[in-house]
Amino acid sequence: MSILVVGSVALDSIQTPFGKVKDALGGSATYFSAAARLYGEAVNLVAVVGSDFPQEHVEFLQDRGVNLDGLQIAEGKTFRWSGRYDYDMNTAETLDTQLNVFATFHPQLPDAYRDAEYVFLANIDPVLQLEVLSQIRQPTLTVLDTMDYWLNYRKETLSQAISAVDIVLINEAEARQYANTFSLIRAARKILSQGPKALVVKKGEYGAVMFANGDVPTQSFFFAPAYPLEKIKDPTGAGDSFAGGFIGYLAQQGHATSHRESSVTKDEIKRAIVHGSVVASFTVEDFSVERLRTLTMEEIKARYRDFKVFTNFEPTCPWTDDCEHLNEKVP
Amino acid sequence: MSILVVGSVALDSIQTPFGKVKDALGGSATYFSAAARLYGEAVNLVAVVGSDFPQEHVEFLQDRGVNLDGLQIAEGKTFRWSGRYDYDMNTAETLDTQLNVFATFHPQLPDAYRDAEYVFLANIDPVLQLEVLSQIRQPTLTVLDTMDYWLNYRKETLSQAISAVDIVLINEAEARQYANTFSLIRAARKILSQGPKALVVKKGEYGAVMFANGDVPTQSFFFAPAYPLEKIKDPTGAGDSFAGGFIGYLAQQGHATSHRESSVTKDEIKRAIVHGSVVASFTVEDFSVERLRTLTMEEIKARYRDFKVFTNFEPTCPWTDDCEHLNEKVP
Repeated sequence: MSILVVGSVALDSIQTPFGKVKDALGGSATYFSAAARLYGEAVNLVAVVGSDFPQEHVEFLQDRGVNLDGLQIAEGKTFRWSGRYDYDMNTAETLDTQLNVFATFHPQLPDAYRDAEYVFLANIDPVLQLEVLSQIRQPTLTVLDTMDYWLNYRKETLSQAISAVDIVLINEAEARQYANTFSLIRAARKILSQGPKALVVKKGEYGAVMFANGDVPTQSFFFAPAYPLEKIKDPTGAGDSFAGGFIGYLAQQGHATSHRESSVTKDEIKRAIVHGSVVASFTVEDFSVERLRTLTMEEIKARYRDFKVFTNFEPTCPWTDDCEHLNEKVP
Repeated sequence: MSILVVGSVALDSIQTPFGKVKDALGGSATYFSAAARLYGEAVNLVAVVGSDFPQEHVEFLQDRGVNLDGLQIAEGKTFRWSGRYDYDMNTAETLDTQLNVFATFHPQLPDAYRDAEYVFLANIDPVLQLEVLSQIRQPTLTVLDTMDYWLNYRKETLSQAISAVDIVLINEAEARQYANTFSLIRAARKILSQGPKALVVKKGEYGAVMFANGDVPTQSFFFAPAYPLEKIKDPTGAGDSFAGGFIGYLAQQGHATSHRESSVTKDEIKRAIVHGSVVASFTVEDFSVERLRTLTMEEIKARYRDFKVFTNFEPTCPWTDDCEHLNEKVP
């Protein structure tokens, strides 16, 4: 099933306690595409770069089989972001943002893109997110991400975009801010009341939570922890890699059941959240997209199996091949 | 199997956005005992109160079947704590602490208490925690809690106490502070290297994590979310109720398998964490011990079943009685 992503392709300069990079490949559409392509479905990218954008980065995406027909190359400089993380890797301090060619970007979908089945509207101006939706014919699933900037300066348009998509995928602080409440459950209820079928709240090192519409409350909630990592080198791209694993998995499942209805089950969303968490856990192990260059589906499956062990607390042990360990005595 | 708890019995004055109470029943040993008793095993309490301690509070504990032979009544005033929570219910702001009779407290175990099998050393001076351990004959399981104050002013003695117990049960910030690292995995490794078999880190609204010694890394990690609550009235006592559910469950399991070795399995610890999370989720629904007055094992079991649903992401659906809901379409 074909995937469409609209977002940024950028050059990032990042400092963390574990090193720094300058003008490294970044951007929401980049991380998303590299992550989603691991699941084998077609990924069509819409974004803009400047005439200074290095050819090697284009080749990175081409080598991964990302369709770049929708990548505009505009006269001028590529979008640049510069940020710093302290030991608390949960929040980036933005040092500099240069929109450059991104400032005047309007997504134009090549005609073949308009039949996209799985659509990811990465964190861009909700005006542009709506422009994309208006160009798509009959998507199976639409997913939206956003950030605090649009909550502050485009709230009304953002509400329109939220009402128009199937799944909203945002950070915890943004969910609370959007709904103006400390209660994540009340925030979820407000967002779901505007139309989406499900809300996935990303909590960084604390994992991710799904809230879904439905009559059975307990069936409409799901929680996945973050994969436990001893060292996070660079959290940049974690959220977009999460989205890539999330939608990559759902598109793959859609492919496997090609006569399905145009919807996804809650159970598929739960497993997609675990896949998103797994892919994000690899991304943050290195700077930029470095870890995604070598990541394999075998590695993804191994951490997916780990997640079963991390969250299983019943003695019947159906989740793991090596059940004998589960009931071993604490040494 | 008999449980011993040493901690505080206090009068709390608490303000939250949802109300306030003055001189309400509180204290770590109080919350722990009321929670642990729900699991049916004997609970022996060691603490001190002043001559001003209301008889109705003594009766609350007696009615729950808590053995109060170890409750000293000293001349003077009962330990009082006053605190305030803002909408972010994760951290209390201490307004006032009056140690009163607690300042000169030394735990003296009645002889019958010295055969205690499951021991909880609540958050008190680690000097006193070691005094208790020296009076116990042959415990099955010893568990220690602490707080930042002792990390700052009694670190060396606290390290001795940590080395002497089976399980350490502390907050996330305290684990990081104790080990002087932002990495919870490195903090866990340091604490486990000092002797305990397992570390349970309480993360408040983000749930709880187990780290255990063992050769299989993935089998030595477990994560449980917090039960999703729309409204938390008063977080006071959440940690001690967690400990009560945690140890209450383990003692009950020990009773059920009376010929067992003197240890617990990792799998039992995982389920005990879920029980602790469930009991804590009820405690915070009301002020003081109000919710624990009426809480039943049926209610606990219902939320325990909910936890399976919240964390299960596989389609085989072995965890729930109403499997048909798990794969329902998102409406």
